[in-house]
Amino acid sequence: MTDQKLLSTQQISTHNSPDDCWVVVDKQVWDVTDFLEEHPGGSTIILKYAGNDATEAYSEVHAPSVMKTNLQADKFKGVLDESTIDAEWAKPSTVTAKTLPDNEKPPLGTLINSHDFEVVASKTANNKTWAFYSSAATDLITRDANKSCFDRIWFRPRVLRNVRAVETRTKILGGDYKLPLFVSPAAMAKLIHPEGECAIARACESKGIMQGISNNSSYTMDELRTAAPSTDFFFQLYVNRDREKSAALLRQCSANPNIKAIFVTVDAAWPGKREADERVKADESLSVPMSPSKAQNDKKGGGLGRVMAGFIDPGLTWEDLKWVRQHTHKPVCLKGVMSADDARMAMEAGLDGILLSNHGGRNLDTSPPSIITLLEIQRRCPEVFERMEVYVDSGIRRGTDILKAVCLGATAVGMGRSMLFATNYGKEGVEHLVDIMQDELETAMRNIGITSLDQASPDLLHTGDVDHLVPTTASHPYARGVAKGRRGAKL
Amino acid sequence: MTDQKLLSTQQISTHNSPDDCWVVVDKQVWDVTDFLEEHPGGSTIILKYAGNDATEAYSEVHAPSVMKTNLQADKFKGVLDESTIDAEWAKPSTVTAKTLPDNEKPPLGTLINSHDFEVVASKTANNKTWAFYSSAATDLITRDANKSCFDRIWFRPRVLRNVRAVETRTKILGGDYKLPLFVSPAAMAKLIHPEGECAIARACESKGIMQGISNNSSYTMDELRTAAPSTDFFFQLYVNRDREKSAALLRQCSANPNIKAIFVTVDAAWPGKREADERVKADESLSVPMSPSKAQNDKKGGGLGRVMAGFIDPGLTWEDLKWVRQHTHKPVCLKGVMSADDARMAMEAGLDGILLSNHGGRNLDTSPPSIITLLEIQRRCPEVFERMEVYVDSGIRRGTDILKAVCLGATAVGMGRSMLFATNYGKEGVEHLVDIMQDELETAMRNIGITSLDQASPDLLHTGDVDHLVPTTASHPYARGVAKGRRGAKL
Amino acid sequence: MTDQKLLSTQQISTHNSPDDCWVVVDKQVWDVTDFLEEHPGGSTIILKYAGNDATEAYSEVHAPSVMKTNLQADKFKGVLDESTIDAEWAKPSTVTAKTLPDNEKPPLGTLINSHDFEVVASKTANNKTWAFYSSAATDLITRDANKSCFDRIWFRPRVLRNVRAVETRTKILGGDYKLPLFVSPAAMAKLIHPEGECAIARACESKGIMQGISNNSSYTMDELRTAAPSTDFFFQLYVNRDREKSAALLRQCSANPNIKAIFVTVDAAWPGKREADERVKADESLSVPMSPSKAQNDKKGGGLGRVMAGFIDPGLTWEDLKWVRQHTHKPVCLKGVMSADDARMAMEAGLDGILLSNHGGRNLDTSPPSIITLLEIQRRCPEVFERMEVYVDSGIRRGTDILKAVCLGATAVGMGRSMLFATNYGKEGVEHLVDIMQDELETAMRNIGITSLDQASPDLLHTGDVDHLVPTTASHPYARGVAKGRRGAKL
Amino acid sequence: MTDQKLLSTQQISTHNSPDDCWVVVDKQVWDVTDFLEEHPGGSTIILKYAGNDATEAYSEVHAPSVMKTNLQADKFKGVLDESTIDAEWAKPSTVTAKTLPDNEKPPLGTLINSHDFEVVASKTANNKTWAFYSSAATDLITRDANKSCFDRIWFRPRVLRNVRAVETRTKILGGDYKLPLFVSPAAMAKLIHPEGECAIARACESKGIMQGISNNSSYTMDELRTAAPSTDFFFQLYVNRDREKSAALLRQCSANPNIKAIFVTVDAAWPGKREADERVKADESLSVPMSPSKAQNDKKGGGLGRVMAGFIDPGLTWEDLKWVRQHTHKPVCLKGVMSADDARMAMEAGLDGILLSNHGGRNLDTSPPSIITLLEIQRRCPEVFERMEVYVDSGIRRGTDILKAVCLGATAVGMGRSMLFATNYGKEGVEHLVDIMQDELETAMRNIGITSLDQASPDLLHTGDVDHLVPTTASHPYARGVAKGRRGAKL
Repeated sequence: MTDQKLLSTQQISTHNSPDDCWVVVDKQVWDVTDFLEEHPGGSTIILKYAGNDATEAYSEVHAPSVMKTNLQADKFKGVLDESTIDAEWAKPSTVTAKTLPDNEKPPLGTLINSHDFEVVASKTANNKTWAFYSSAATDLITRDANKSCFDRIWFRPRVLRNVRAVETRTKILGGDYKLPLFVSPAAMAKLIHPEGECAIARACESKGIMQGISNNSSYTMDELRTAAPSTDFFFQLYVNRDREKSAALLRQCSANPNIKAIFVTVDAAWPGKREADERVKADESLSVPMSPSKAQNDKKGGGLGRVMAGFIDPGLTWEDLKWVRQHTHKPVCLKGVMSADDARMAMEAGLDGILLSNHGGRNLDTSPPSIITLLEIQRRCPEVFERMEVYVDSGIRRGTDILKAVCLGATAVGMGRSMLFATNYGKEGVEHLVDIMQDELETAMRNIGITSLDQASPDLLHTGDVDHLVPTTASHPYARGVAKGRRGAKL
Repeated sequence: MTDQKLLSTQQISTHNSPDDCWVVVDKQVWDVTDFLEEHPGGSTIILKYAGNDATEAYSEVHAPSVMKTNLQADKFKGVLDESTIDAEWAKPSTVTAKTLPDNEKPPLGTLINSHDFEVVASKTANNKTWAFYSSAATDLITRDANKSCFDRIWFRPRVLRNVRAVETRTKILGGDYKLPLFVSPAAMAKLIHPEGECAIARACESKGIMQGISNNSSYTMDELRTAAPSTDFFFQLYVNRDREKSAALLRQCSANPNIKAIFVTVDAAWPGKREADERVKADESLSVPMSPSKAQNDKKGGGLGRVMAGFIDPGLTWEDLKWVRQHTHKPVCLKGVMSADDARMAMEAGLDGILLSNHGGRNLDTSPPSIITLLEIQRRCPEVFERMEVYVDSGIRRGTDILKAVCLGATAVGMGRSMLFATNYGKEGVEHLVDIMQDELETAMRNIGITSLDQASPDLLHTGDVDHLVPTTASHPYARGVAKGRRGAKL
Repeated sequence: MTDQKLLSTQQISTHNSPDDCWVVVDKQVWDVTDFLEEHPGGSTIILKYAGNDATEAYSEVHAPSVMKTNLQADKFKGVLDESTIDAEWAKPSTVTAKTLPDNEKPPLGTLINSHDFEVVASKTANNKTWAFYSSAATDLITRDANKSCFDRIWFRPRVLRNVRAVETRTKILGGDYKLPLFVSPAAMAKLIHPEGECAIARACESKGIMQGISNNSSYTMDELRTAAPSTDFFFQLYVNRDREKSAALLRQCSANPNIKAIFVTVDAAWPGKREADERVKADESLSVPMSPSKAQNDKKGGGLGRVMAGFIDPGLTWEDLKWVRQHTHKPVCLKGVMSADDARMAMEAGLDGILLSNHGGRNLDTSPPSIITLLEIQRRCPEVFERMEVYVDSGIRRGTDILKAVCLGATAVGMGRSMLFATNYGKEGVEHLVDIMQDELETAMRNIGITSLDQASPDLLHTGDVDHLVPTTASHPYARGVAKGRRGAKL
Repeated sequence: MTDQKLLSTQQISTHNSPDDCWVVVDKQVWDVTDFLEEHPGGSTIILKYAGNDATEAYSEVHAPSVMKTNLQADKFKGVLDESTIDAEWAKPSTVTAKTLPDNEKPPLGTLINSHDFEVVASKTANNKTWAFYSSAATDLITRDANKSCFDRIWFRPRVLRNVRAVETRTKILGGDYKLPLFVSPAAMAKLIHPEGECAIARACESKGIMQGISNNSSYTMDELRTAAPSTDFFFQLYVNRDREKSAALLRQCSANPNIKAIFVTVDAAWPGKREADERVKADESLSVPMSPSKAQNDKKGGGLGRVMAGFIDPGLTWEDLKWVRQHTHKPVCLKGVMSADDARMAMEAGLDGILLSNHGGRNLDTSPPSIITLLEIQRRCPEVFERMEVYVDSGIRRGTDILKAVCLGATAVGMGRSMLFATNYGKEGVEHLVDIMQDELETAMRNIGITSLDQASPDLLHTGDVDHLVPTTASHPYARGVAKGRRGAKL
């Protein structure tokens, strides 16, 4: 380091790009262009000082010796001519982060997990939308347990396994998808973004995952297919009291090549009581002009969720599944199984799959968390997994949640609410959320020591903290007689 | 859609009722009168825009195509003449909800669950009333566990069962009632509403449920009978130290055809220490003129609950039940059983029923939650259910709570505090609360897949989270000798 | 009611005492003197309106009919002459409660449980006193579990037992006491009240309970005996590194007839780290002039608790108990047993009793709660209860706590911190707290259905929520060899 | 006490040092110089009043009699001449503690536990440093459970054992250390103090404990050795994708006599998602000038932790350990074992030790707490402890935590984050923290009744509150075939 050439700040500041990057440290000027990619701390932090003085940031983490031992002598370019320092050079490089008003959406790139999308939606969506999306039945016990039961299941990570390459590709009902994750069907996505389900469909197309769509979609299935011609859908059917209307829908599904399966909804025999939703309605109805007799009938409240469910047939039975089969040649699955007993019945009925779901806790509070039902099937009738596909939704917020469900036998999982919250940012929002989930899933797989999903198994988990929540005996036998032990009922 | 007739805002706005309803969407005018009942989102939301422009609300949830595909062409009436738009037309339809002052009761229709009634009472009842109604023994552990133990019991819902028609009718001691729910006897309802227990009685009459009344009712049983001639009552007897006074009451009950049973109170052998109640008294007594000697005796506090209990005989035993039988020919039940052992003794004593109750946690803190006692009976002596009726109160706040108790063998359940809080709104308040409970119960029944209460059974529940709280061995044998394992006591 | 004599407010207001009490209800004047004692709501509330208008308070709880049906016609005295109403008569009888400044002690009568005394002390004692009394070891886990484990044990109350008369008398080491409750020895009571332990001694005398006193008492045992000549004491001995000093104390004890037993402290082999206490010291030491070398040694903090413990001998062993016996003929007990194994060793060593204690959580955090140790003895070596007395302290705050300990085999329990907090009010404060504990204990006994302490037994409790905290195997055998399973240690 | 000589305040105040200390109590002047060391309350409190009036402080804790009974008559020096009292004498001795601004470090002596260092760092370190040090993976469940699981393990203390002398010396891999505690390797200590790891090294030297250093140290291993020539280190190796770089490091280690062992990192196969860290990065990157294409790639966030991990090889396997052995003759251990299965494999692979660690919860959320893994080894393969040393880190905050790990078979434990927070105060900070840990450990040992670490054993603990979290069956067998029970994966 004999060359002590003086360099002016003007000279130095021209070398300020990734392709030509000088920095000053302790008054010595270095060319770090070639070193950028090697920097253990990443190139971004260096580029922040490209063509400028990096002494302060450097000293925060490095001993003075590090520069010299890591760079070859020819990278030393000279010494800063301090007489050329001016106000422009001396000004701090850090830009003060501006504080956003609470009702404005922050830049998408600053959202780093699914919870962030929920927080942003809670602040920027209107009251009615937030109430409809976020609400769940009565005391929210099932909604919260859906998530907390995942958190109470522990991994048993294995070490020293080659996890360089990790593969998340998944087959669902014969189709190939990039992730064991699909978008759960959810109603009224247009409430949060004008493109609604179309935005979701386009994101699913670009990310290679499946989308569920429902009767209550803001857009028709034809519109969705037009929006995203290569997205695979499954159709979530709420069977109408007027069966002909449902038959017509099934015929449409059969004719639509993008629809890969029919999921018959069975966890909403009756609309649940979602109180946040009802409260918005209760407030609103005060200002609606209506005849006294109608007002009288409306006394129970009944938010958006309830009024939308008016057409659903609460009389649907296992027999009706034959009727469904008559109207479509596509795979038929049940959406909303909540017990091992019904899982077994679905298997015996020859269905193609079941989606374990409690409707996100929206229908009956203290219904079992879906992951508990999955454990119940593992314990009481594991043969189900051999004969049909099992999916899980309700409570998935993390890549670790996906992996836990897959370890316990699920083929894939669905996310509903989170996807709606991501739709707040349109297609890009949903894509960003899918990217996050993929990153989290891959990170979790590598850190428990597996590289493909067929290596996932129950023994990579410890469920001791929730095992007492899993039923071990048969539940209510179908069509049984008088209840035992209830004297009043016998009279 | 060839007819492009221009329509003025004046013309359009005359079609503004359920019987003649036009709306404007994207400048096109549609007659939606016939469609109102078919709208999946309910008619209310459309009527809000009757005779006006609905574009904004429509676009929030629907794609532009939906209008045309759901309405026949003849429902298209023309095109909005924009030149006729004036201030009246353009003003927003939403009325701003007024914010109520905290001490004013909100409209009854905006209360949608039992908790709401409690919240309103906490803000609008006076301190003494709130303290007397809401307080419970010492650290409130039993009061809170009464509710939380219900929350820790999970349903095991079954799907695909025809639940179109659901029936909640219940037989209690031979009488027919619309619900497995009665009003628990509670004292001093007049504190919160001038009509007190009379208002409750009238609500029970209109809703077809039973009412319990107590010694400490603000109104006499004759006044209640006059108020609600077709209500069925049971009388909760606190046996007086002066037995003749109780005998007189029993004779009155026998002579009153509306009284269907006598419930002898056994969970209040000694008045509990309800500290919220005592604190009101402690503050108040500072300002009461009294002689020093009397003041001295009052040192322990002793709120409204304690002073009211002064006449109750703590010497009541199983032998005294024979004396009760001598003074009435009506069914006799025990109110306040807290162990399977006493349930079995009640059965052996030939009683007609038992009400499992810890007095709402008001008497002895860390007494077992009633639902735990019900589980103890299921586990240790299920034969009890075959030979007598079992009721439960303490902690019932939701329709799901009612259903869980019935699943575990209860004939019916009682609600006490919540009914007092509903009395804040008089008869209509109690009716509204009963409506809510019925709706919640029916929703829960349908969503677990049953249509009548005799289909309820323990195997529709999973109690794994509370099973460790249920005793499995015999409790204190009656009339036993010296305690084992306590040396000091033997001296 | 034919007599309609008009009565002036002046006339009425002279009948304003318990011996001559008139009240006005709905303008009718009644003589309620004889009814005062019969009023189910107590006499206090009526006396509040003696010689005045009670209409408003009456109407709050009673129907209009109640007056006439409860009072004989001759008690009707006439009709209020409304023309005589003046400002004095009309003014409201309720005196507004004055709000106390936070650092002023409220009237003793408004304190209704042991927590109240703690709250008052936290606001009115100085920082150092509060820190010394309230602090416990490090993270306060044991301190809090001492209380919460009591709360997690449930009663199994029995009904319909004659509980008119209840007896709490207890024999402790042959002496008779009014309660199974003693004052735990605690240091430095003078910090909170000038009379310190003397005030406690006088309260114990008037209430008939035993007091423990310690080496670190603010007053000598002679001073205490002078203050309360008929109080029974036990002396808590911290054995001094200089044995002769302890021998001198033992001789004093032997000569003092009020000292009934020696409790040798064994749960403070080393002073615990009480951080609240150390923080006060750490702050204070900043301002103390001291030589640099001394300051250096003081680095670890060391609050009042630690410096006071400097003389205690950490070398005390079972062998030393023989030395204790040589210096006193009085009963010798151990204070601070924390395992069933040591309870058995104490029994085998022929001791007279053991006090299960973790020093109020002050010495080693995550030491087992005392009530758990009591359960461990019940489970692992119940013969201990047959051969020696067992006492419990640490965490007793309620009468229910006392009863639970007695049910599980304890002869009596001690309260330490609460008694110090009560000393804030001197002798009267301690008496008031003892009264409260007695009332709570009697209420609990009656409400589980027992009338004397020898009826208490473990089967009146359900411990399912804490059973997993109770060890079932032998703990560390005394004087064993190399630890198993620790490779490093073997080197 | 016949001599009543009057003494002026000027005379008294000259006796104001530890070597000549007079105090005034109740106007009487005493020479307490010889008594200073005997005072049960310590000398500090007396010295505070040396040469001054101590009446107020004395009376707070002592009865008037105490002075006379504890001091010989010749220590009485005379009576205060009140006429000489002036303002200087009368001014209060207590100095008001100054309140520090929140972002200023309080004096080191006022920090009394490891939590204090964390609190101070949270207030005084910059955002980026705090985020990098404190963050952990996603929902922080493992980070928090690391600590709380220690808190849920109870001691079973034994009493009456001679614990005068206690010894904490520990052998680790053949070396002698003063404590079973080492500094866990952690990156970037320079962020919080300019001397970074050098300060830690010097503290370890003076305190006689071992220090782990990592690839990502702010200082090189030569610089550290120069700083602290007699400190023993182990080197935590992150194996580089470019094996030659790691080989070079191993050669350096072999040549460095202070490096006593190589710890190969296996719990960071892939960098975890530390969201606090990523959020700082996400905010920062908004202001960094970079080309659009680079910005695009950075979308996932990736805080300091993630970018630093870019060079780590996720392909490391058990086979590679042979390669490590080829490059060093020093003991080789694994850092990051999280299952009994891998512990057994490490034993079978002939390793010298394993460090149970989940990287402080920084890599995979819901990884098992390290203390649970230790329990799993105790339960499933205790032979591991006989054949290799086992260390534990993650969650150690207290001396009791150290003792619990040692009781369960650990040779020593590591502290990482806390040591970084202590480095905030440089070498003295780390020394102070080590002193605190030693004091807490010794206090805990004495209070459970042991005097050397080889007396520690599992039966001194009760783990009933966490036993359900410990796996009892084999986890994922290495290199197994298709997962059972996952139909989708088989396709």
